[in-house]
Amino acid sequence: MFTLEASDDESQARAGTLQTDRGAIQTPVFMPVGTQATVKALQQRELLDIGAQIILGNTYHLYLRPGEEVLAQLGGLHRFMNWPRPILTDSGGFQVFSLQDLRTISEEGVAFASHLDGSRHFFSPESVVAIQRCIGSDIMMVLDECTPYPASRDYARESMERTARWAARSRQAFAETAERYGHRQLLFGIGQGSTYADLRREHMQRLVELDLPGYAIGGLSVGESSDEMYEIVQASTGVMPSDKPRYLMGVGTPLNLLEAIARGVDMFDCVMPTRNARNGQLFTTRGKINLRNQKYRFSDNVIDPEIDSYASRNFSLAYLRHLFKSKEILALQLATQHNVAFYLWLMRTARTKILAGEFRQWMRFFCEKYRAGDSDS
Amino acid sequence: MFTLEASDDESQARAGTLQTDRGAIQTPVFMPVGTQATVKALQQRELLDIGAQIILGNTYHLYLRPGEEVLAQLGGLHRFMNWPRPILTDSGGFQVFSLQDLRTISEEGVAFASHLDGSRHFFSPESVVAIQRCIGSDIMMVLDECTPYPASRDYARESMERTARWAARSRQAFAETAERYGHRQLLFGIGQGSTYADLRREHMQRLVELDLPGYAIGGLSVGESSDEMYEIVQASTGVMPSDKPRYLMGVGTPLNLLEAIARGVDMFDCVMPTRNARNGQLFTTRGKINLRNQKYRFSDNVIDPEIDSYASRNFSLAYLRHLFKSKEILALQLATQHNVAFYLWLMRTARTKILAGEFRQWMRFFCEKYRAGDSDS
Repeated sequence: MFTLEASDDESQARAGTLQTDRGAIQTPVFMPVGTQATVKALQQRELLDIGAQIILGNTYHLYLRPGEEVLAQLGGLHRFMNWPRPILTDSGGFQVFSLQDLRTISEEGVAFASHLDGSRHFFSPESVVAIQRCIGSDIMMVLDECTPYPASRDYARESMERTARWAARSRQAFAETAERYGHRQLLFGIGQGSTYADLRREHMQRLVELDLPGYAIGGLSVGESSDEMYEIVQASTGVMPSDKPRYLMGVGTPLNLLEAIARGVDMFDCVMPTRNARNGQLFTTRGKINLRNQKYRFSDNVIDPEIDSYASRNFSLAYLRHLFKSKEILALQLATQHNVAFYLWLMRTARTKILAGEFRQWMRFFCEKYRAGDSDS
Repeated sequence: MFTLEASDDESQARAGTLQTDRGAIQTPVFMPVGTQATVKALQQRELLDIGAQIILGNTYHLYLRPGEEVLAQLGGLHRFMNWPRPILTDSGGFQVFSLQDLRTISEEGVAFASHLDGSRHFFSPESVVAIQRCIGSDIMMVLDECTPYPASRDYARESMERTARWAARSRQAFAETAERYGHRQLLFGIGQGSTYADLRREHMQRLVELDLPGYAIGGLSVGESSDEMYEIVQASTGVMPSDKPRYLMGVGTPLNLLEAIARGVDMFDCVMPTRNARNGQLFTTRGKINLRNQKYRFSDNVIDPEIDSYASRNFSLAYLRHLFKSKEILALQLATQHNVAFYLWLMRTARTKILAGEFRQWMRFFCEKYRAGDSDS
């Protein structure tokens, strides 16, 4: 299912292709986050236009709303939201464990109260597989505990051990159930272990024994430093099989992504391009732009002529700034469109450079230009 | 500049073409409202796609934000917002007079406080022409007092007389100034007179003496009944020259538009399709749809297969309802796209039917289907 096409000589960067029933995914890949069956402020046709190969959905959110009954009756998430390409669904572990006071963990699973109406629910490794069968995502994720940061070594081990047992149960539940809409689904494992490199390695090795079609690094970008993050990524990819896709969950800035690619990661998701867009922050090839900055009041420059999206090339920063100041919806639409297009461009370009054997050189050049740009926030 | 192409035998409906420097406008026409240099939740390319021939801007809002300095430096409103087709700017009279306690009328003009920051400003017929020269709109509107409803006959006359004097001053100011961006601008007059048919006729006749390239009926859809509105429209169009375009400002529902077309109106603008979209109300060929209605929870029907827009044909009502319940931005985008596409379709179809001599018959058929549809709000 996963073909490795190139490995960089000067780093651990890889270019590959993951085959799914809804099409091939060329890696490195960024997956825009569509939590509630929509990538916020973007139309599905726009995601296709700017080259999104796969998007994310969220099991926790979709389970609460619209719910399994609606999803099943409308033919699964792809048909519900009219998205023809692959979808990966996060297990909901991150969201449930973020509820803090509203949830109780046991060996069996996790009891929680809905953030919408306080109603009580229970997620087990098995029920989360069942919900994702109903959603019909191409890539399903196992239920895990996203260990809070910082965590004591003892708690990190206890949590990791339970997550490891849950992964085995998830695999079993996956094997005992079938897909519902005629498209094959894949189940990925998630490695935890907080910031302890040995726990990370141990957990990942136990996951690899389950022989899953892909593995993720979870529980990062939760407060640790970039250096800690890179160290854990390195420790994890060091024991991940080279013939399976490697997914770093919830990370991060453009520079985080390139550093992780250099350490052997293939897949990414993050709310940063969409969320920051809605706050008026743009990611461009010449650095970050904060549209609320007074200096753009008269700027006739477009967002970024190097990025091939309608938003990137057709509107002045002065106009974008006016839209943000006026709280216009179009501000969110154009900024999101550009930021997601930028992240997709970054991954496509990284891939091209890996295939051409020029990744390290390009990455150095890109990072210099990005850091030196008219960054102002 | 305005060519009358067909007049209906069974009504006063007309089909015509208004020529501007930025292209021809085929009438009857609906002009989507883009108050602050954006039609809320719609991209400019989408407006082109669904066939918007001309959009509105608002002098009051654009004067306050982004302001004349930004507009002038960025080359006028068309260039600022990257909109290649005609723009009509309302004078701001309606907005200023809506400020109520925040404004003072005199013969010279109207003093008002900004709704944004309370700062003091003054609009005169001359300054409003000057601002619209700076905006660069293809069609400028004279400053008028939008007489409140209900108004005593005495106040309606006093207000109308002042608005008539302002129109003469506006024409003078227009003649003494030049366009700034190399595109010819037109100045339209606005008839007032509240719900008094004789005052309406008198004012319109005085406007006609100014020999302007187009005339509008203002001060309607402010609380009067539909029957009163139709009576005033009839009284107004009865004295409007047949060789000039006739514009009914701020009206209205799909049925209001057809009734006004039957009484000889050519041009319309209204926030209804955009504003109601953001509240979850869709206008369709089979009536109104309120997406918050529980009955759409499992509905696999698209919004309206007869309307040629991406939103109209590619998403189920169940999905749209989910987006509204989840407060997702995409809900506003898709609902707005459909509603505006519907209004544009309605005007295009009316025109086709007028040209084919089938307007009355089609209008009867359309209204029956619209009223009988699954209207639920």
